[in-house]
Parts: sequence; C-alpha cells; structure tokens
Amino acid sequence: MEKLEKLYEGKAKQLYATDDPEVLWVEYKNSATAGDGEKKEDFAGKGRLNNLITTLIFDLLKKRGINSHLVARVGETSQLVKKVTMFPLEIVLRNTAAGHFCSRLGVEEGIELKEPVLEYFLKNDDLHDPFVNDDDLVALGVCTREDLAEIAPLARRINEALIEIFAKIGIKLVDFKIEMGRTSDGTLLLADEITPDSCRLWDQRDGSGKVEHLDKDLFRRDLGDIIPAYEEVESRLAELAKSEGIEVAE
Amino acid sequence: MEKLEKLYEGKAKQLYATDDPEVLWVEYKNSATAGDGEKKEDFAGKGRLNNLITTLIFDLLKKRGINSHLVARVGETSQLVKKVTMFPLEIVLRNTAAGHFCSRLGVEEGIELKEPVLEYFLKNDDLHDPFVNDDDLVALGVCTREDLAEIAPLARRINEALIEIFAKIGIKLVDFKIEMGRTSDGTLLLADEITPDSCRLWDQRDGSGKVEHLDKDLFRRDLGDIIPAYEEVESRLAELAKSEGIEVAE
Repeated sequence: MEKLEKLYEGKAKQLYATDDPEVLWVEYKNSATAGDGEKKEDFAGKGRLNNLITTLIFDLLKKRGINSHLVARVGETSQLVKKVTMFPLEIVLRNTAAGHFCSRLGVEEGIELKEPVLEYFLKNDDLHDPFVNDDDLVALGVCTREDLAEIAPLARRINEALIEIFAKIGIKLVDFKIEMGRTSDGTLLLADEITPDSCRLWDQRDGSGKVEHLDKDLFRRDLGDIIPAYEEVESRLAELAKSEGIEVAE
Repeated sequence: MEKLEKLYEGKAKQLYATDDPEVLWVEYKNSATAGDGEKKEDFAGKGRLNNLITTLIFDLLKKRGINSHLVARVGETSQLVKKVTMFPLEIVLRNTAAGHFCSRLGVEEGIELKEPVLEYFLKNDDLHDPFVNDDDLVALGVCTREDLAEIAPLARRINEALIEIFAKIGIKLVDFKIEMGRTSDGTLLLADEITPDSCRLWDQRDGSGKVEHLDKDLFRRDLGDIIPAYEEVESRLAELAKSEGIEVAE
C-alpha cells in the first residue's frame, strides 16, 4: 500500500490517501494538546505508543464482536484504516465523574455515576466543541434519529467492553471519547483512536485508593511525564492481548 | 384563602403558604432580569400583565386537555396554585433558532428547525443553569428515566398546543421555557408561568417579515419598552379565550 497526499492534519494524527480509495493511512504524532489547544507539547515516543495502544484496543474489541475502521498497523507510527465518512461528533462515555462533567455540574471528581453517561459534543473548533443533545443534532442535520439509534447502543457496548478489558489489567475506565463513521456501504464503525489521550484511566494495582493517572491528565494537570504511563498501559494491554491469542507487535 | 408566610422569592415571583397545605399563593413582581441576573429593572404593570397572561394561557391549555398547577387568579398580581414538588429543571422547547441556541451552535437567528428541539437546563444559580442531557439528569439523581419518559412527551404536547394558540393570534412561538412538578399524589403538572418573560414571541400581523418582538428580548437587547408588547399579547390572548368561552378578567 502506498502513502499518497496528506488529506488532513489534526492535533495528534495526520491522515493520508493511499492507492486504494477505500483505505487511508494514519500517522500518529508525538504532540499532545490540552485546554482547547492552548497547551501544546511534544513527547518523544507518544505517536509510537498511541499507535500500539489503539491497535491493541481495536483488536481486543474485535475479539468481543465490535468492529473498528482498523485494517492493520503498518509501521511504528502508522496504521491503515478503512475510509469512513465521520460524524462530526465527540462521543463521550462516563462511568465516574471527572473533568468537564465535574466543573459543569458541580460534582466531585471520583464519584461513581449511577449509570454510564453518554454525551455528544459537536466537533467545531470555532464553537469550542459545544455539548449537544439528540434533538440539537437532528435539528442541525448532523445526524438522523436513525443514526443516533445506532450510535448510542454501539457507544454503550464499547463502554461495557472497555470497562471489562481495562478491569482485567487493573485499570479503572473513568471516561473516554470515541468517534464513529460510516463506510461507503453504510456500515457504522468505531473510528479515530482509543488511547490514553482520549480516555481517563486510573491505576488500581497499588490498591491504595489514591488516584494514579495513566492518561493525558498527567499533561493537562502537570502531574508528571506521560510516557511511562502510556508505556505501562501499552504493556498491560499487550500482555492481555497475548493471553487472548492476539498477535502483538514486539 | 389566607396568604401566610413567604416561602420563596425568585426573580419575577414570590411564593407564599396558605391555610391549605396543598395550595400556594403566587405574587407576580414587576422586576425583569436578563443575562444571568446581571441586568435588572422594574416595569410598572408587568406583574399584573404576567399574572393575566399565565392565567389565560393555562386556561387555554386546559381547554386542550393539558392541566397546570393553576387553581385560580385571585388578585391583580396574585394566583393560587397547587403545591407541587418541582423538578429543578428549565425545560426549553425551540421551534425557530434564537438566543442561546444560536450563540452556542453558530446558527443564524430565525432559521426554522427541522423538528422542535427539547433541551433541559439544570436550575442552579452557582453553576449558571448548565445545559444537561437525559443521562446527566439520571446520573445526578435529578430525574429517573420514568420521569423523563413523562416530562418529554408532555413538554412536546404543550409546544404543539402553544404553537396553535399563538398562531391563532398572529404570533410565532419561537421558543419557550417551562417548569414542571408533581403533586403529592404523583401527578405531573405544568407549573411556574408561561409569559413573554419565558417565551420568544414574534409578531406576524404586519406581514412584513421583519421580526417584531413581543417578549423579554425587548429588554434583553434594549429594543424598546416591554409593557406595550406584553399588553398586546394579553389583549390578543384574552380575545381568543373569550371566543372559546373562557371567563376572562376585565
């Protein structure tokens, strides 16, 4: 597969065309951003780790019957993915109160939510990715009711699968953001990435009850180096994947 | 019925106990606020007009099978209402893009929405009444799924009835805010008020297509005196109510 012209550059990835019109080439970058893009820094090795982690998670989800856009990891920082038409949505699932949920609603961080909370944010830099509800999305023509009736159950299934996956490796899945799109034949697929950039992951292994962040909050809140945390997540996921017979990059 | 101790004072109304534990006394005030309470002014006659308008609208809705907490208008600025346990929610229905919907989502004011939009805002001054979705409300314990399955259809029925009522008097119902509560026997009721303070009402009678506000946007946006607009709304509603055989205060 040949990497052709660049189609898009986001905060953490670049997207290229390939010689197959149905396949795109993703490059994971080393940059991390936070605070609506106001904070930005490069971390050597982050692109490689996030490429590994997304691949492991998408493979673990596939084992659980959940398909993604991933075709194959093809290099240290690169992946081939199916071309999908993305919904311009950040689809957020929350199991424990943290971050924006707490500041917006006056809830203490760490409170377990009675039920998982699904929230949509419209991807729009100028509007700072506003929080929207189902009616807003339909009124704006971003989704149909039928789209939402597929997106929401898939998002909740992914949450259940990820809770189970992370629990197996001693990590509490606090919340995460995913994106979805449709292939040319209309199939709804999990797309984009699932990494410590897009999840809040709290280490449960030391058993102290103290929150040990294994995610981008280390960067957002200046709590320490992200790379050892991302390495830890990668190594635990790789161990789990191997135990499930998934082929893992060394 | 006797007016006893004051229970609550809001921006536009006061609430008093009565000698009947199931009935409260509402006093409509002349004050108007806008911009999260930053702008405040008194308008002589506003309390009287809003008391008349809410009474007319609740009576017109009752004719259409929608019950409210209203027992009776008992004075120029006072009403008796059934005591209900309020949901701490501003329930917003939008038919045409305006106000917060436009600034939040980058939509031009006046655009007709494909479908009516229902939005909830948590009543909390400290948090500036944040926008919330169904999952947020359930997770916070503000409502149950069962509450929402009653609240949403009732809100949409009220919207349909109000569109019809206002269309009959040459007014476009752009959007409005309502509140609901449950009586001691669990019945869900429309409560609070429906007035030009809580609705966006655009006059359609001159046929020019130019937006003539008959609502609090006159105050919010410094467009003119609110009292003649509120008088116009009251007089048209009174005419409609009379034509439907409803007893109207002179």
